[in-house]
Amino acid sequence: MVSLKGKDILHGNQFSKRDIDIIIKVSNGFEKELKKKDSLTLLKGKILATLFFEPSTRTRLSFETAMQRLGGGVICMGAVESSSVAKGETLSDTARTVAQYADVIVVRHPRVGSAKEAADAVDIPVINAGDGAGQHPTQALLDLYTIRKELGSLKNLKIALVGDLKNGRTVHALVEVLSHFGVHFYFVAPSLLRMPEEITERMKGKGCEVIETDDLVMAASKSDLVYMTRIQKERFSDLSEYEKVKGSYIIDREFLDRLKKKITILHPLPRVDEINPDVDSYPGAAYFRQMRNGVFVRMALLAMVLGKK
Amino acid sequence: MVSLKGKDILHGNQFSKRDIDIIIKVSNGFEKELKKKDSLTLLKGKILATLFFEPSTRTRLSFETAMQRLGGGVICMGAVESSSVAKGETLSDTARTVAQYADVIVVRHPRVGSAKEAADAVDIPVINAGDGAGQHPTQALLDLYTIRKELGSLKNLKIALVGDLKNGRTVHALVEVLSHFGVHFYFVAPSLLRMPEEITERMKGKGCEVIETDDLVMAASKSDLVYMTRIQKERFSDLSEYEKVKGSYIIDREFLDRLKKKITILHPLPRVDEINPDVDSYPGAAYFRQMRNGVFVRMALLAMVLGKK
Amino acid sequence: MVSLKGKDILHGNQFSKRDIDIIIKVSNGFEKELKKKDSLTLLKGKILATLFFEPSTRTRLSFETAMQRLGGGVICMGAVESSSVAKGETLSDTARTVAQYADVIVVRHPRVGSAKEAADAVDIPVINAGDGAGQHPTQALLDLYTIRKELGSLKNLKIALVGDLKNGRTVHALVEVLSHFGVHFYFVAPSLLRMPEEITERMKGKGCEVIETDDLVMAASKSDLVYMTRIQKERFSDLSEYEKVKGSYIIDREFLDRLKKKITILHPLPRVDEINPDVDSYPGAAYFRQMRNGVFVRMALLAMVLGKK
Repeated sequence: MVSLKGKDILHGNQFSKRDIDIIIKVSNGFEKELKKKDSLTLLKGKILATLFFEPSTRTRLSFETAMQRLGGGVICMGAVESSSVAKGETLSDTARTVAQYADVIVVRHPRVGSAKEAADAVDIPVINAGDGAGQHPTQALLDLYTIRKELGSLKNLKIALVGDLKNGRTVHALVEVLSHFGVHFYFVAPSLLRMPEEITERMKGKGCEVIETDDLVMAASKSDLVYMTRIQKERFSDLSEYEKVKGSYIIDREFLDRLKKKITILHPLPRVDEINPDVDSYPGAAYFRQMRNGVFVRMALLAMVLGKK
Repeated sequence: MVSLKGKDILHGNQFSKRDIDIIIKVSNGFEKELKKKDSLTLLKGKILATLFFEPSTRTRLSFETAMQRLGGGVICMGAVESSSVAKGETLSDTARTVAQYADVIVVRHPRVGSAKEAADAVDIPVINAGDGAGQHPTQALLDLYTIRKELGSLKNLKIALVGDLKNGRTVHALVEVLSHFGVHFYFVAPSLLRMPEEITERMKGKGCEVIETDDLVMAASKSDLVYMTRIQKERFSDLSEYEKVKGSYIIDREFLDRLKKKITILHPLPRVDEINPDVDSYPGAAYFRQMRNGVFVRMALLAMVLGKK
Repeated sequence: MVSLKGKDILHGNQFSKRDIDIIIKVSNGFEKELKKKDSLTLLKGKILATLFFEPSTRTRLSFETAMQRLGGGVICMGAVESSSVAKGETLSDTARTVAQYADVIVVRHPRVGSAKEAADAVDIPVINAGDGAGQHPTQALLDLYTIRKELGSLKNLKIALVGDLKNGRTVHALVEVLSHFGVHFYFVAPSLLRMPEEITERMKGKGCEVIETDDLVMAASKSDLVYMTRIQKERFSDLSEYEKVKGSYIIDREFLDRLKKKITILHPLPRVDEINPDVDSYPGAAYFRQMRNGVFVRMALLAMVLGKK
């Protein structure tokens, strides 16, 4: 990339390896600066608008924190029921209106392609914070930043992605940004929730090794890192199938002890029961550190699309 | 006016022609300043409280943007269900409480006269952001600012107001502020939704020409500017009547092409289908510019009631 | 206390007399500073997260005002339905996530002990803004600050606490902080809603005189200050009992005139009908001043737990 200035952030596949290297570098710079002082002034006077059409705590608060740590301000649409969306306004019109007020927009919406739709309607940068079962590129970048930080490097890694790989937008976006680094993937899912074939094939095409399995024990024992996600009960027509599957994808301390090797565990959170709280004190349990990294990476992305880095 | 310092902004008819001239001048000054830098520091340390008892995106976010662009802070009551209103608190008590925290209050409430009620309860300035079918004076001022900017002057204008003129608080407020400028009005509405006679008579008394009609084609072809509003289905007992009426008050590109003259089109938004998206690229389609002007005008009003201009 | 730096604020009984003296002094200092300028910069760059799992207007807005008057920023979880709590996240996980973003957390939650639970999960200071029928320590401190300011001193006071003393977390916390000052209490409640015996006994053990009664006229006529609270209809199984009780605990101007002495009246608000609006102009009606004091006291607490005072 010459620069992210004025660009939208919509899809994990929009970044080259060099883009990712720069984003990591800028994120890391902010992480270091925040160790010296609580906030910076780089985006003083800029305003971020957050438009969340689906529930969120961490993504929205993480962006709002990032913006404020850079000295900027925030306007937040709030619940859909209290907004003009309740009067029947289209996403394009809402985005165009908000673009008259703010300098950058972050949008989450249940429809695949919605962030692109908003981006097409406005002249200011739009950042996709989740479009249905589509993409969640800033999550992917903070995951990648975390992996690199926890494991020291992105080279020659074996990574198991576990859970609902069919509908999980975070894993869809994560494999895209990891594909530049020759990762060896284990896609661990029940047959109903396998990674879409199109994505699996693209990963192979990019030189990644991919092993698809439903065996978490095998995959975890061969991986450096396990990326857990929630399995959503509502996707199953046969609930006994769900119960069986659900049980096999729970990590607890006993599971980790049996592995006889140290691994790193990530999760985009919120978790329900797929990671037992007794894992929280395990040294490789990095999912709360992962949350903190989200602030640095989103600071980098906000600063870059606003042309300040 | 000597000054708006400490005053409430409740009704379109509270402004003299000279008041309006000053508000336009201050708004224009802020618009120019924001071209040079993203934000100012005039209201640094001041706090705006937004109390919205009805859905809103643009009015609330516009005020919150205006306050932050002036360096001030914002506190927002949020959804009514999560507030003490859910415990049975009166509007007066809520306003009095919030007045202990903030320096200025913006209120939207479904009851006509509610903003006045809040203003009577507190010592700090209260700004009416819509009181039921009553008034919406800051919308009126930003509309007027937009008309002046788009058309170069407010003199000798022909303006068609279209849609639900009975219940539309934005048009009720707009005609009040326009009445100082000898405007020639076309009030275009189905018979059920005509402008209240009291308002029509007052406009005539102030020297405005008023033509009431249900013929949009005629009115648009004779006007410099068409101000569209939403027709609300729920006001009609006879739905076939609604369908007929609704159909006649849609503007699309074909409609505009048939006019054989350039006009300016405003709309307070959100729109549902009364302006077709194919109009958005028409040069006179000023409704998104109108949104942006709202920030400048609200900056002016906030600064003025807080005694900083 | 050596210092409140890094400490949680969970319970009225955690403060020594000396702690309270210092908090009053710091609060008073901020009150004076805010008379000279609208806001300070002591917490510039710090971020407060507000997590309210129950309706609130004044407590949340008061904290958000306090933080902004000190130059800090705010992130707000918003309505529970729009947060990750809707996805089944535990309070501990929500708190741990938010602790990655913010420097201090304020939490309100319907479960007794919830604030402690959140505090145990994170390394940053947590402030309890109400845990069910448990505690509300910052309300207690602002009440105490108000009493001292209205009456000039905390010594030898006679104070009537009126209403639902069984479930009222504000009175539970208030008696704890007042217990250091040898207060003479009248606990005025219907028999169903009496102060928990454990609290009454502890107050006596600390040298406070306690008289339990259901006679408001008697108690008010002997007290310097009456602290009113709402009686919650839903606690009564026998509604005729409720109606009788409710009627006896209403203060209006006539009631005050009959007392033949001046008293001070506080209420944590919102009120429903237990204080008639005709009392608002009574010189001793201090409940809106009480709201304003909340900002100064919360500024003090935020500054102190963040190690800036």
